Amino acid sequence: MYIDFEETSKILKNAKDAVIITHQSPDGDCVGAGFGLKDILSELGIRSRVVCSDPFPKRYDFITSIGAGEEFEPQTIISVDVADTQLMGKYEKIYGDRVDLCIDHHVSNKNYAKKTLLNADAAAACEVIYDLAKYMGVNITRHCAMSLYTGMATDTGCFKYECTTARTHEIAAEMKRTYDINFAKINRCMFDVKSKGKMRLEARAVDLFEERLDGKLVILAVTQKMMKELGVEIEELEGLAPLTIQLETAEVGILIREKADGELKCSFRSADKVDVSEIAQTMGGGGHVKAAGCKMRGDIEYVKDCLTEAVRKALV
Amino acid sequence: MYIDFEETSKILKNAKDAVIITHQSPDGDCVGAGFGLKDILSELGIRSRVVCSDPFPKRYDFITSIGAGEEFEPQTIISVDVADTQLMGKYEKIYGDRVDLCIDHHVSNKNYAKKTLLNADAAAACEVIYDLAKYMGVNITRHCAMSLYTGMATDTGCFKYECTTARTHEIAAEMKRTYDINFAKINRCMFDVKSKGKMRLEARAVDLFEERLDGKLVILAVTQKMMKELGVEIEELEGLAPLTIQLETAEVGILIREKADGELKCSFRSADKVDVSEIAQTMGGGGHVKAAGCKMRGDIEYVKDCLTEAVRKALV
Repeated sequence: MYIDFEETSKILKNAKDAVIITHQSPDGDCVGAGFGLKDILSELGIRSRVVCSDPFPKRYDFITSIGAGEEFEPQTIISVDVADTQLMGKYEKIYGDRVDLCIDHHVSNKNYAKKTLLNADAAAACEVIYDLAKYMGVNITRHCAMSLYTGMATDTGCFKYECTTARTHEIAAEMKRTYDINFAKINRCMFDVKSKGKMRLEARAVDLFEERLDGKLVILAVTQKMMKELGVEIEELEGLAPLTIQLETAEVGILIREKADGELKCSFRSADKVDVSEIAQTMGGGGHVKAAGCKMRGDIEYVKDCLTEAVRKALV
Repeated sequence: MYIDFEETSKILKNAKDAVIITHQSPDGDCVGAGFGLKDILSELGIRSRVVCSDPFPKRYDFITSIGAGEEFEPQTIISVDVADTQLMGKYEKIYGDRVDLCIDHHVSNKNYAKKTLLNADAAAACEVIYDLAKYMGVNITRHCAMSLYTGMATDTGCFKYECTTARTHEIAAEMKRTYDINFAKINRCMFDVKSKGKMRLEARAVDLFEERLDGKLVILAVTQKMMKELGVEIEELEGLAPLTIQLETAEVGILIREKADGELKCSFRSADKVDVSEIAQTMGGGGHVKAAGCKMRGDIEYVKDCLTEAVRKALV
């Protein structure tokens, strides 16, 4: 059931010993939303714990360093930025069928929770949480603002992508006026800082580009074998997806990462016109209009051909 | 003499057959400011012509396609985003000593014009011009908004750098609410789209990095010989400067480009703490706290050592 700010605020105020579930392969938005909401619950005097099926990447240390929260038997189950219980990883079995409240911005949200606050127009779950906190009149601490800014910045490619709304910019403006936060340092850490290994990896990506459909589709497939040769972990490949649409001709880009168990993680990016969430949904995945994903199995060349066909249809 | 919005608005309203001078090696801010101001003068019924010592790069076609303006004997000389008459290139001799109005945001502005509207806190000259137009109550056309947005986006690295102010975000929000503009397409064109040659060039940059001062300084020097080998023009190297501070350890990055006449164009970037405009000024250049530049001559290795010494001092 979809609910509004008023009903969400009632649930939060009455929450007790809350667990906040973020999605696997955590990104800036779910980390920011999870810890930002934890700060808000703290302000309400409610203890909470943020959980994630995967470890939080080191670059979010400035957010996660406050600690995920102590162990307790949760009474209120909340998920943030989680469109589907499948994305909870190992927490799906434990909490998947008893989520009290989901706060999300994915148009593909499966409406799995008892109550869902969904704003599919928001650029980030963090944007929804900021507006919720403002509605509730809860104090937004500096740490909370830093966390929420991070989610808004990362989900919009630093205000670059189409999902960026007027409201996203307004919130950033409000934060800049209110808090003494080194936003540029956060941005540098999120978007620019790289190890030499990662720079080399990105440097090689262009040579691995496979252009299809007259260059309108660019596929970058990285197999386990290639990862071993390059000496990189699959997590380090996260940032390669946007590179697939940097080529002038590219309308759609697909990054395919082969997991150790042979599963193929496909990340779609759209340059301008194509709705890649539609393509991902036909493959059992989901996401946003300009950035989506799905998981596939089978021969990688066959998968590439299937995806190419799907993109060809979408380009018509 | 520094003047305010009121006096600037009087000068603009009384302008006649205006020439608008932008700086050489044009970037998004001077192109956006030049053509944005041209639109504003048009609204006031005043004809104008935008001039630049170098051709406008193709990626700004969506701004410049309205035409730079017809030939006439100018009565009012205006410069935008030009901190120093030296930056006018071939127009310095013609107009350098008789600029009626300069609109700028560079803290290093030489105050060369009869009247100067300077807001060194603004992220871009385009931001100053937007606020000026609002103050004057002039209609801001869609083309004008596109032009001014482009300048704000490019000078802030798409709202990423420290120079981004609350006001920058507010203006972006106002524009998003007011105009039907594909901002994401502009951003993609400014920041992401690359030819395969440029991608390859950037890919090679990492191998050309020279780390000094325990990696706190990264120098990327591209000589004429190297450009010939890579098959690239000096203009194509413009975007390499930000790459020099992507390395985790980098506090300062310097891109050195050797021009055909042997002059060395040095572009400085600061990751966080160092004020590179100070370093550039000691070398006869100028710019912003986080992005500055200067021109030098002499043996390239000797120049590198001089710059290293200047950075070493700044890092203390």
